[in-house]
Amino acid sequence: MALSATVLAELRGIVGPSHVHDAAGDLVAYARDATPLFSHRPDAVVFPADTAEVSAVLALATRHQVPVVPRGAGSNLCAATVPLRGGIVLVLTRLTTILEVSADELLARVQPGVTSAALADAAAARGLLWAPDPGSRTVATVGGTIATCAGGLRGLKYGVTRNYVLGLEAVLPTGEVIRTGGRLWKDVAGYDLTRLLTGSEGTLAVITEATVALLPAPASANTGVAYFPTLADAGEAVARVIRAGVVPATLEFLDRACIAAVEDFAHLGLRADAGALLLFGDDGPPDLVAAHLDRIGAACVEAGAVEVTTAREVAQAEALLAARRCALPALSRRGGVTILEDATVPRPRIAEMVDRIDAIAARHGVAIATFGHAGDGNLHPTCVLDSAEDHEAVRRAEAAFADVFAAAIDLGGTITGEHGVGAAKLPFLAARLGDDQLALLRRIKTAFDPAGILNPGKLGS
Amino acid sequence: MALSATVLAELRGIVGPSHVHDAAGDLVAYARDATPLFSHRPDAVVFPADTAEVSAVLALATRHQVPVVPRGAGSNLCAATVPLRGGIVLVLTRLTTILEVSADELLARVQPGVTSAALADAAAARGLLWAPDPGSRTVATVGGTIATCAGGLRGLKYGVTRNYVLGLEAVLPTGEVIRTGGRLWKDVAGYDLTRLLTGSEGTLAVITEATVALLPAPASANTGVAYFPTLADAGEAVARVIRAGVVPATLEFLDRACIAAVEDFAHLGLRADAGALLLFGDDGPPDLVAAHLDRIGAACVEAGAVEVTTAREVAQAEALLAARRCALPALSRRGGVTILEDATVPRPRIAEMVDRIDAIAARHGVAIATFGHAGDGNLHPTCVLDSAEDHEAVRRAEAAFADVFAAAIDLGGTITGEHGVGAAKLPFLAARLGDDQLALLRRIKTAFDPAGILNPGKLGS
Repeated sequence: MALSATVLAELRGIVGPSHVHDAAGDLVAYARDATPLFSHRPDAVVFPADTAEVSAVLALATRHQVPVVPRGAGSNLCAATVPLRGGIVLVLTRLTTILEVSADELLARVQPGVTSAALADAAAARGLLWAPDPGSRTVATVGGTIATCAGGLRGLKYGVTRNYVLGLEAVLPTGEVIRTGGRLWKDVAGYDLTRLLTGSEGTLAVITEATVALLPAPASANTGVAYFPTLADAGEAVARVIRAGVVPATLEFLDRACIAAVEDFAHLGLRADAGALLLFGDDGPPDLVAAHLDRIGAACVEAGAVEVTTAREVAQAEALLAARRCALPALSRRGGVTILEDATVPRPRIAEMVDRIDAIAARHGVAIATFGHAGDGNLHPTCVLDSAEDHEAVRRAEAAFADVFAAAIDLGGTITGEHGVGAAKLPFLAARLGDDQLALLRRIKTAFDPAGILNPGKLGS
Repeated sequence: MALSATVLAELRGIVGPSHVHDAAGDLVAYARDATPLFSHRPDAVVFPADTAEVSAVLALATRHQVPVVPRGAGSNLCAATVPLRGGIVLVLTRLTTILEVSADELLARVQPGVTSAALADAAAARGLLWAPDPGSRTVATVGGTIATCAGGLRGLKYGVTRNYVLGLEAVLPTGEVIRTGGRLWKDVAGYDLTRLLTGSEGTLAVITEATVALLPAPASANTGVAYFPTLADAGEAVARVIRAGVVPATLEFLDRACIAAVEDFAHLGLRADAGALLLFGDDGPPDLVAAHLDRIGAACVEAGAVEVTTAREVAQAEALLAARRCALPALSRRGGVTILEDATVPRPRIAEMVDRIDAIAARHGVAIATFGHAGDGNLHPTCVLDSAEDHEAVRRAEAAFADVFAAAIDLGGTITGEHGVGAAKLPFLAARLGDDQLALLRRIKTAFDPAGILNPGKLGS
């Protein structure tokens, strides 16, 4: 469907003519997000300036039954912001004001288009920590971080985004502006709409402002690395760390294929002969961090680590973290299409899950390398293909990932730990939630969006 | 309405005749919960044994349009479990099995009738901590703790119940059994129904099993007390603590009237000449706890504390915590009716809020003493009346509390921080949320409960 001249004129009236784009080049640019293999052109790309404009656009869209897909940086990996049914892509990147950072109240108030890194920097300047730490934080917006309930490298100790959202201003698809929560650590007045919107992937409302909790910045941090003969050994080390009563800030793993790709890419001096690498780190008072890293190192040795090193200086610690952060780019450059998933299993079952992934990859004749968050069982099996045009290879990769999701569910896990459902994993949602719960999600969606205009074909559809 | 003979017979068929009570004495016992001034008799009290029985009772109730009020210990303070429209009180206290406590996975799986204290004990036996810590934890059930998103004394550092619920099994009012979340720290497959049910006060579904996160038990804990000339001085101390980058596990205050009541009740040697008492505590490695308590003590002195004492031994620390925990019984024994509220404001506005409460109390000619959680701005203004039969006094207290809620909202706060809305605060919810959000809550309620049988007259009504 194309938008009628009337609707386009109304949109231009709301946000100003220069903030409605409908040239072919603009539409192509917003047909995709960071997810490979998904693409659909919108009919218009609209850049509102404030809450009132967002409200007017949504009310108009509901009146005319026009789909609206809210979007921040579009860095999600589940096709959550691909406009499957055309309509309007509503880009929130003009709302970039950090309204407040309060050291007294340990909170910030921001517009949705602020990047997660910009908020982290503003917090750090006041001695505070914005805990959510998605891999894409330099581009990812806070609005998108909240809309996807993004995770990251600090999930085990710090929890995910939902723990840090205190309140939201959001616009319903019918145009009403609601305010949930506020500057309060405790507030049980009403259903927890703050959390319901967090992770709702732009299907229930458009977030126009967020009040988020910050923490006092930890006094110090350090990182170490351990190499193991097998991933099962690394899994045993993780179990021993937890059993020792230590919940570290960082506990990341790379399998053999990822180690090779990262070393090939970044030349960090990683041991290419290891079956698995465990990156561990903690933050807090220096004595405590040192004690924790010692204990983690000891647990790694007990579990059969062939080498354990703790960073002796900040630069070395940062290099180690970089090894983990560059896993995705290191893998990606090996081909034209990178499919990155995030099946998640209970922590003790990581090694078993990676074994299953390896068997699935072999069965389907695709190469899958796996890295991820060992602390919270969140795996990122990654498949690199030469080209999206190799339809046979794409088909095999898709079949392999369907098996990966089924394996995760079979082990008591889930189809997505932190990336989201979007369009990419919607076909697998019923297997995870069951038909009754899926029907309930649809009824909740309707309670927010009776006309079904907000991000159709995604969560709640 | 009375239940028909058919419905009663069907109920007896589902749970067994001995688990359906409809004698007058039983109905009176379940007409109330811990909330004063609210009472309504049910038509039957039903004690199911398992999820299948809960499902059958709910399906029956939906079919016959019979109200059902789920109930654990009934220790809530907002009339959340008073059966306002009669019908069935569904008591979950036969589901008392701790199904699992896993030190490897840092989680427990429990039935809803387990008390919060029993779960805490079972966790402690494995070196683990169940963080939610409501004042009523010796009787409060885990199901009720989750249904109310209970807070407690550790909210600032540890967060409230919602942060510790990993997954739920719940029965919809129409009888379907759903499972949300699981044994996972990260799971974004679908809307966050785990959090939507947490704090939904038995209006959306009946929780029949919970998987909850546990923490490694802290190695040590200690407590101190500071006395201040005024509550404003105590508020300044709290601000200085936070500004120093310390987020203590415990930061509780008592106003002058509470100090007097507690001392009169428990003879702990509290200073009756102080305008405010601040109880502070932290847990963790002994060195860190000592350093934090020193820093908190210093902040108190800078803010004008007339006396600061840190407990020298565990027994003394426990006595100090007892002082805070007995604030409510100490006040309660002064009269026949105790109305305890929990208006909440942003942390820096506590002293201002207590001043407003004092002025409101004076204006309405009632005595209100206030204690609460200074760390998260959660106040418990408490009014003790001689008797519920003194209708004029009750009317004045109610009018005063209506003004207290309005003042909290005016200061950017909320009408309930941790106790819930129930029937008691439903009339004030629109002032906090606005009509658009209230209408949205009703639509969400309908998405779960099309027949409106689950806890009618409460949240979502």
